[in-house]
Amino acid sequence: MKKVFIVGHRNPDTDSICSAIGYAHLLQKSGGNAVPARLGPVNDETRFVLKKFGGKTPALLKSGAGKDLILVDHNELSQTLKDIEDANVIEVIDHHRVGNNVETVLPINFEIKVLGSTCTIITDRFFEERIPITKKIAGLLLSGILSDTLLLKSPTTTKKDVKAVKILSTLAKLNYRVFGSEMLKAGTGLVRKTPAKILETDLKEYVQNGFKIAISQVPVIDEKDVDKIKNKVFLALRKSCEKKGYAFHLVMFTDIDDGNTELMGCGPKIKLVEKAFGKKFDKGLIFLKGVVSRKMQVQPAVLRVLKK
Amino acid sequence: MKKVFIVGHRNPDTDSICSAIGYAHLLQKSGGNAVPARLGPVNDETRFVLKKFGGKTPALLKSGAGKDLILVDHNELSQTLKDIEDANVIEVIDHHRVGNNVETVLPINFEIKVLGSTCTIITDRFFEERIPITKKIAGLLLSGILSDTLLLKSPTTTKKDVKAVKILSTLAKLNYRVFGSEMLKAGTGLVRKTPAKILETDLKEYVQNGFKIAISQVPVIDEKDVDKIKNKVFLALRKSCEKKGYAFHLVMFTDIDDGNTELMGCGPKIKLVEKAFGKKFDKGLIFLKGVVSRKMQVQPAVLRVLKK
Repeated sequence: MKKVFIVGHRNPDTDSICSAIGYAHLLQKSGGNAVPARLGPVNDETRFVLKKFGGKTPALLKSGAGKDLILVDHNELSQTLKDIEDANVIEVIDHHRVGNNVETVLPINFEIKVLGSTCTIITDRFFEERIPITKKIAGLLLSGILSDTLLLKSPTTTKKDVKAVKILSTLAKLNYRVFGSEMLKAGTGLVRKTPAKILETDLKEYVQNGFKIAISQVPVIDEKDVDKIKNKVFLALRKSCEKKGYAFHLVMFTDIDDGNTELMGCGPKIKLVEKAFGKKFDKGLIFLKGVVSRKMQVQPAVLRVLKK
Repeated sequence: MKKVFIVGHRNPDTDSICSAIGYAHLLQKSGGNAVPARLGPVNDETRFVLKKFGGKTPALLKSGAGKDLILVDHNELSQTLKDIEDANVIEVIDHHRVGNNVETVLPINFEIKVLGSTCTIITDRFFEERIPITKKIAGLLLSGILSDTLLLKSPTTTKKDVKAVKILSTLAKLNYRVFGSEMLKAGTGLVRKTPAKILETDLKEYVQNGFKIAISQVPVIDEKDVDKIKNKVFLALRKSCEKKGYAFHLVMFTDIDDGNTELMGCGPKIKLVEKAFGKKFDKGLIFLKGVVSRKMQVQPAVLRVLKK
């Protein structure tokens, strides 16, 4: 039986890594030959999670040529393997917008659900297939949901996410609020990192109307940290735009506790971002009250202005 | 509550019309404001089905501008409303390849399943939502499955399609083999139709690697009928290519009983079709033994040669 690689997006986050591990486990238990893989280094938060639950770091996949792939947590070409055209994509499971995505010649199972995390969809699959969720897998899937929904506080959170978190917490034998806070804290540590690293850790690229843009998101525990690093990050943003040809590169500094975002940005089309939010950059930042979700609150607003 | 229009593909077939009616019914019963719609005239087979089960012909939708839409039985831009970019697509349910499809700025529910018909997916939704299937809706959904799977004989047929047909036959109180044969016969009648009409009735367009192609499929009961019309159809194919700029336009004359197809084609890139099947056109036709499915057997073969 040909091996199937299950991969999340570039610059993998906890949801990408844990949904790949979870779905590989499910397919193995159903008799399949599936392994989780990743397209880049795991971040601090994910490293904490893998250590906590005894999960192995998935192997790095450098090329998809000739391989059977299942894409989890993404469907856009700009977020997957560069040589995806040479791979055989056999399934897609995601919770993001329908982007400029992979084309197939045969029908494949392709599911996007409007849920807070891909790990919630994977959890549902376990229920549907009646495959038991081990303590370790429960902890990993729980981490993916808590990470993507910022402990169920993000506006992307649905009833299904809440239900999954309750069940998985019981199976993993932990209090999700306590564990979730520890996990998010493990992922911050702004001042220690280089500005380039801060931008890369959770960066997504989008292509709309011929424009390539990038949005990074950085969780922040202490607001003062942003002041300490913002000048250096701005220089890194400028470099990133020049190097990658972005119409703009944004970084969301998201205060997890208060549920607000400070947006910073740079690039030839940056004025469109001001238009998108009806606000001007002030000392390099736009304050977005109540904004915590890139997917639901920032990305749609900026893609809409690029569409026009 | 804003009205949602549920539409199948251009040149609608029985699966497109019946899945739209079925899903609208399901959403209405769940408290939604949904209506089925269509993008073109219903064919003879579908007219027979609607009359048999007392279904209303869905209203013709000429523009999607400003409307909320759910696409069923298709996801490719080349098969939907021309002004789809001005519509708000809120969901997609399909069983075809992932094509050059709609892009959204927000996540939407988007589900492609490898099943014989979209009506099978809709039937499953009724079960999941625990909404009773009336005798009329059972008859319509059954028709969609039997039509797309050629009475469960097509290689696209899955266990789920077979199971759905059994349940729906019981609910509709009929023998599916007897009813299905009547239905397919109602859809033929080659000699009575104009060649242009024969090509248009079940035509799908695809765009691959910058080439636009079309594949029509025509069910045939009596093989001699093909001989009677083939010269006229060839002239119509040539006209169609010139008018629409197709790289080629193919027509599959599919013998439902024997499960074989006679393929006819025309257009500047027609040599690629010979390459795709490793056969030359003989008196204008390529005989394809055991080929009955456009989606699984013809379309992938020709899209692959266009990709190179």
